Amino acid sequence: MFPKLERKKVFRDPLYGYIYVTEAVISDLIDTKEFQRLRRIRQLSGVSMVFHGAEHSRFSHSLGVYSLALNVLQEVDILKERLSEYEQIVFLAAALLHDVGHGPYSHAFEHVFKVRHEKSTANIIEGKTEINTVLNQYHKDLAADIASVILKTGKFTIIEQLISSQLDVDRMDYLERDAFHTGAAYGRLDKDRIIRMLTLHNDQVVFKEGAVHAIENYLMSRYHMYWQVYYHPAARSYEVMLESIYKRILDLIKSGNLNDEYAVYLKTIIENGFEEEAYFELDDYYVNGLIKRFSHCEDEILSGLCNEFLTRKLFKYVSVNMNQEQIIKDIIDGRHLTPYEYKIDYISQATYLVDEFDIAVSKILILSKEGELKTLDQISPIIRGLSTSGIKTDQKLYYRDISHE
Amino acid sequence: MFPKLERKKVFRDPLYGYIYVTEAVISDLIDTKEFQRLRRIRQLSGVSMVFHGAEHSRFSHSLGVYSLALNVLQEVDILKERLSEYEQIVFLAAALLHDVGHGPYSHAFEHVFKVRHEKSTANIIEGKTEINTVLNQYHKDLAADIASVILKTGKFTIIEQLISSQLDVDRMDYLERDAFHTGAAYGRLDKDRIIRMLTLHNDQVVFKEGAVHAIENYLMSRYHMYWQVYYHPAARSYEVMLESIYKRILDLIKSGNLNDEYAVYLKTIIENGFEEEAYFELDDYYVNGLIKRFSHCEDEILSGLCNEFLTRKLFKYVSVNMNQEQIIKDIIDGRHLTPYEYKIDYISQATYLVDEFDIAVSKILILSKEGELKTLDQISPIIRGLSTSGIKTDQKLYYRDISHE
Amino acid sequence: MFPKLERKKVFRDPLYGYIYVTEAVISDLIDTKEFQRLRRIRQLSGVSMVFHGAEHSRFSHSLGVYSLALNVLQEVDILKERLSEYEQIVFLAAALLHDVGHGPYSHAFEHVFKVRHEKSTANIIEGKTEINTVLNQYHKDLAADIASVILKTGKFTIIEQLISSQLDVDRMDYLERDAFHTGAAYGRLDKDRIIRMLTLHNDQVVFKEGAVHAIENYLMSRYHMYWQVYYHPAARSYEVMLESIYKRILDLIKSGNLNDEYAVYLKTIIENGFEEEAYFELDDYYVNGLIKRFSHCEDEILSGLCNEFLTRKLFKYVSVNMNQEQIIKDIIDGRHLTPYEYKIDYISQATYLVDEFDIAVSKILILSKEGELKTLDQISPIIRGLSTSGIKTDQKLYYRDISHE
Amino acid sequence: MFPKLERKKVFRDPLYGYIYVTEAVISDLIDTKEFQRLRRIRQLSGVSMVFHGAEHSRFSHSLGVYSLALNVLQEVDILKERLSEYEQIVFLAAALLHDVGHGPYSHAFEHVFKVRHEKSTANIIEGKTEINTVLNQYHKDLAADIASVILKTGKFTIIEQLISSQLDVDRMDYLERDAFHTGAAYGRLDKDRIIRMLTLHNDQVVFKEGAVHAIENYLMSRYHMYWQVYYHPAARSYEVMLESIYKRILDLIKSGNLNDEYAVYLKTIIENGFEEEAYFELDDYYVNGLIKRFSHCEDEILSGLCNEFLTRKLFKYVSVNMNQEQIIKDIIDGRHLTPYEYKIDYISQATYLVDEFDIAVSKILILSKEGELKTLDQISPIIRGLSTSGIKTDQKLYYRDISHE
Repeated sequence: MFPKLERKKVFRDPLYGYIYVTEAVISDLIDTKEFQRLRRIRQLSGVSMVFHGAEHSRFSHSLGVYSLALNVLQEVDILKERLSEYEQIVFLAAALLHDVGHGPYSHAFEHVFKVRHEKSTANIIEGKTEINTVLNQYHKDLAADIASVILKTGKFTIIEQLISSQLDVDRMDYLERDAFHTGAAYGRLDKDRIIRMLTLHNDQVVFKEGAVHAIENYLMSRYHMYWQVYYHPAARSYEVMLESIYKRILDLIKSGNLNDEYAVYLKTIIENGFEEEAYFELDDYYVNGLIKRFSHCEDEILSGLCNEFLTRKLFKYVSVNMNQEQIIKDIIDGRHLTPYEYKIDYISQATYLVDEFDIAVSKILILSKEGELKTLDQISPIIRGLSTSGIKTDQKLYYRDISHE
Repeated sequence: MFPKLERKKVFRDPLYGYIYVTEAVISDLIDTKEFQRLRRIRQLSGVSMVFHGAEHSRFSHSLGVYSLALNVLQEVDILKERLSEYEQIVFLAAALLHDVGHGPYSHAFEHVFKVRHEKSTANIIEGKTEINTVLNQYHKDLAADIASVILKTGKFTIIEQLISSQLDVDRMDYLERDAFHTGAAYGRLDKDRIIRMLTLHNDQVVFKEGAVHAIENYLMSRYHMYWQVYYHPAARSYEVMLESIYKRILDLIKSGNLNDEYAVYLKTIIENGFEEEAYFELDDYYVNGLIKRFSHCEDEILSGLCNEFLTRKLFKYVSVNMNQEQIIKDIIDGRHLTPYEYKIDYISQATYLVDEFDIAVSKILILSKEGELKTLDQISPIIRGLSTSGIKTDQKLYYRDISHE
Repeated sequence: MFPKLERKKVFRDPLYGYIYVTEAVISDLIDTKEFQRLRRIRQLSGVSMVFHGAEHSRFSHSLGVYSLALNVLQEVDILKERLSEYEQIVFLAAALLHDVGHGPYSHAFEHVFKVRHEKSTANIIEGKTEINTVLNQYHKDLAADIASVILKTGKFTIIEQLISSQLDVDRMDYLERDAFHTGAAYGRLDKDRIIRMLTLHNDQVVFKEGAVHAIENYLMSRYHMYWQVYYHPAARSYEVMLESIYKRILDLIKSGNLNDEYAVYLKTIIENGFEEEAYFELDDYYVNGLIKRFSHCEDEILSGLCNEFLTRKLFKYVSVNMNQEQIIKDIIDGRHLTPYEYKIDYISQATYLVDEFDIAVSKILILSKEGELKTLDQISPIIRGLSTSGIKTDQKLYYRDISHE
Repeated sequence: MFPKLERKKVFRDPLYGYIYVTEAVISDLIDTKEFQRLRRIRQLSGVSMVFHGAEHSRFSHSLGVYSLALNVLQEVDILKERLSEYEQIVFLAAALLHDVGHGPYSHAFEHVFKVRHEKSTANIIEGKTEINTVLNQYHKDLAADIASVILKTGKFTIIEQLISSQLDVDRMDYLERDAFHTGAAYGRLDKDRIIRMLTLHNDQVVFKEGAVHAIENYLMSRYHMYWQVYYHPAARSYEVMLESIYKRILDLIKSGNLNDEYAVYLKTIIENGFEEEAYFELDDYYVNGLIKRFSHCEDEILSGLCNEFLTRKLFKYVSVNMNQEQIIKDIIDGRHLTPYEYKIDYISQATYLVDEFDIAVSKILILSKEGELKTLDQISPIIRGLSTSGIKTDQKLYYRDISHE
């Protein structure tokens, strides 16, 4: 049904050596302008300001996730049996396209403009786009089915779990890839073993007992990457500034005080929500161009934030882990800071580890040699220890330092 | 004389593990807006369209070159003796700043706008910039002396050779860093050994005989990186398109047919030559913003080129190694191509290897155990073989394919 | 006082790139026959039968530990200030020599012949050996002082902690080196950071708070290396067989039933305890020669064990984690196994983790930014989780399988 | 025909991550005592005395070669089509077993005792061995056919070329594996690409043009590994001493002056040629045991050589590249050296590079895009340069230094 390329395509990858493409539909998807757009969106926005090596794009990561999905199909016999050829294509394409709806500086973007990247991804897949055209050429249901995987509607539960669960091809690629580029010492995963031990049990993705150590190691790597890389205070500071810039732009546009022709695509999104053409224009190149432009604009708050962003005059930060409301008030009031100039940033078990890590523990299922199904924390004392003991939390006040100006 | 930082600064680097800064002047230079601008200029412009991992910036590379310079000072006793503290600072700062004058998509930029990055680097160091201010704070001659190293005036011949010769800290960093990010199998250099064998002989940088194998390997890595990465036809095609875009913009501005407010900084450079403020604005963010903007402009040639650039519809290419003037003419005339739509690209011994490689051979000096000074090719039959035999040359015609439209 | 080499010596190391020797005394120690003997003793005896890459010797490891000690002296300013030149030499030499007293297949050897390698190391350093001669040439107290560090007499407490504590140069080298050679995915340590954060506080080796994540990662790597590599059942089985072979030899010699001229050196050690000349002969080459020889000997138990050892017919194993005394009894009695043919092997928190890991937790001291001293588990919830939750234990019965014969 | 394992076997490998075994016959071959014997023979005898990390065994290498053979079958479609299932098993088994006939310290062993390891390998495969028994269980012709591949009788020309030619799975594994363990900077090969570009043309193994750079890099790595690792003078010195020890043993046995019971297996080989049982006993363990034993023997020449070998008092060496017959004579006569105490060692183009390298050049065949078959040197100017220019040669006199004693 699905035609192969006459000659397989090869991408040289710094992590995996080579990434191979044999399916014509995958090759065509890579060539679409919406997928090529991912070259213009960095994977780690603020982090690259702290770890200078982490300048890789979502394009690299997306190819990597596709590559792991291909590995999973090649290594796990039971999947090859259970998934039809059509479903295998759905899996590979969904892996490739899962991030296609990310905006520029995605986390701040989503937060301020109230966009969810999963929704935008589905919109791009089903909208008037080159990606949609390609998919329709191969099978009339493909676009809708891939979108359903992205939105986790439950139509293809196995594929949904492989792409997005507590231990999936997306996370495995980004943890290792981000570690590689940041130079972190502890991001190497035993992906081969994890994939080899992956199996199905009553339509659920589970792992054989032989994977327990490799999964423990994966969860520890993840813990370390979060605290040392993703939550690095300077990286957070950069994100906070981005949010402030986005917020100021939003408010100026809404109040009719930003009449810059170049801001048109942001305006469209703000006013009309998702729209293919405008969304396509939104990438790091565009936003960086805006920031450079607005560093000369009349609005002093916006030009100030943009200038400091470009010259790396980051917001300062102070730990406010104890109930130091007074201290926070002192800093904010003492400096007469506007709402664009500070943020209290909680990173805690509550927001990251209950929501992510603890559930990870209960959701990763292990199939013992005797055929019993258990959750990881039932089997691994080290993971049980992690989930029952108090987990590190942190709360910081980020604020613009007057003395900068 | 030169104050140390109270606490040394540390940068995590994917290649070198950690990069250390102990000198206050180096730390202050890194924080200037002109140095931070290098985060916004990719090291390998076209190459990243072929090797998706090669998305690193000149910022990463510049820190790397500084780090190698520091290694050289730590490992080579004779340099510590021969260079005064002041000269050591000149060396470190010149290593850090050597690329600060690069423009966006530098090679095409230099070629079209007739700017030499060494000249711009010197201008930035000596002009009205934060870098100049920092340097003056530490020593009144520092800016002029670092600029003289960049321009190779002969005032500090040893430092000039260490920074820019046939085997220098600049090349050692970029070859290995580019190989790392492209995923090339053969870029690993034995830098430790090369540096340990580096010594002085009558004020010339020479290498002890024990380095010969490591240098042979370095030259071979370089050869392979050129032919497989830097000269990759798709990367060249991308560069050719950039040149065409730059040329069209230049011609439109000169003829008064491009009245876009945002193009102001390019206009300044075209009309007035180097100017600090305008130059600072010129980075990948700016040019990419322009390209996105011009993809919607009225000039059909420019909008066409920009569109195809963004959607990766590269110029096609055909080998024209034999004297196929007729074939070239057929393609160009048959398609009625304007001068913006094709280029004959020579890569040959004549332009790259006589100018670079062969001179490398004669210029790398080896000090034998017996104290004799010889050129590398006198000692190494493998290098002699390389220089006397015919070296691969290549000539391609790159052209816009009508069927794209 | 201590002369430098005219030209520093360089060893190429697969992990560290290059290892440098500048002190004449270190160079002379490496050249002694007792240190060279370590080339003939594998670092991981049984493990190499499971992880075929782990064939490296104690010689490699010992050079590595010396190299880390040198790094510590170079990076930690406070140590350079606090340790006299003499003490620095004591440190470097003790790091180099710390394993020089290991016997062949050391753990089984120590267990059966009641020898402690620390004691043997001290004996070699202070006995009639080339090592002792070298040390005396440089300073009359050197041998006694290095031996005192090995035996932890408390004379040089700082050096003792650097060489042997819960986080020391010995462990850092072997964890990473063993991981490298076994191909384990998770052995990479952030040694640079751990060493950079090392400092002194009231004559105690402590770590600055910035090292906490790197130390957490180190402890997790250690945990994984133990359970997946060092405690691998097939590796344990091999060790159990070695113990049986040693025990049988011991009993035959004691009962006068082993009259093999070649066994003379083992005999000497059994009858007289440590003796320089005999000890020097005891290495893997010697014991492997014995095993090959005894595979043809008359004693059927010994020849059987040796044969099966050489042809990798390992003892079988079965988990006896539940109180399955009956099962154990069935296997042993049912097969009429002699005491040489089975062993119950406990690996548990009690023997490994209370003794090693938990104490590690309480003993690794962290100096907070505010100058407070805390134990690691007070600061790290993840480590606290590890120490309070039940830790995995395991108990296996290893037994010779009759059906082999 | 050939049964698969119920559950595939996995070996963790430091270079390749995991090595997989799915064929029952391969698994059974690995478990034979003759294959397990390779654990007791180091891959690089003398080299490990210079590069301490290079302590890996022929067992590791043999698994690696098997693993590459498996890759070749998986990646090269035309081979899967052209080779029957039976032939594929012949290929995999021959790759695994190709070194099974190596003796201890193989090069010296072959040279002195006039044994060829290919012949011994064939003898073991076809003789009364466990390997032969295993092969016969699976197919009656298997042993004879694998032996024919090892001996290159021309029955399976494609398989012969894949296993042993100028660019084969054997060389690719050992170059990269030896580089990995020695810590050499330049041994990384682009094996994936070389294998992907491998194809057949009229029953000849050839490479598509896209492999040219990867093959150039392979030949350069090989050149560097030879001169810097395999030909390292200290490693050669060690080999020369081994040869002298072997020669002395041979002469003493022949003249009836060595009556050591333990030498029985060497005696058998000397007197009767290949014999399964005796050959099985010959491994590093045995020879090292002999050397330790003979270091105490009565023959002064033998005990002296053995002692110096064990304590790393290597033969000295001096370059005799110019026709310095007089100098050689002076050293030998002046010291009254016996023939066991010196050797003139030629390493030159004549012995290594015409025989190996130049023929490599003419034998590696490249299939151009246009379907033309050319030799590598016709296509690659860099290789042409290598073959036409004079290649480095070296000649050294190795001699026992009287002052040692």
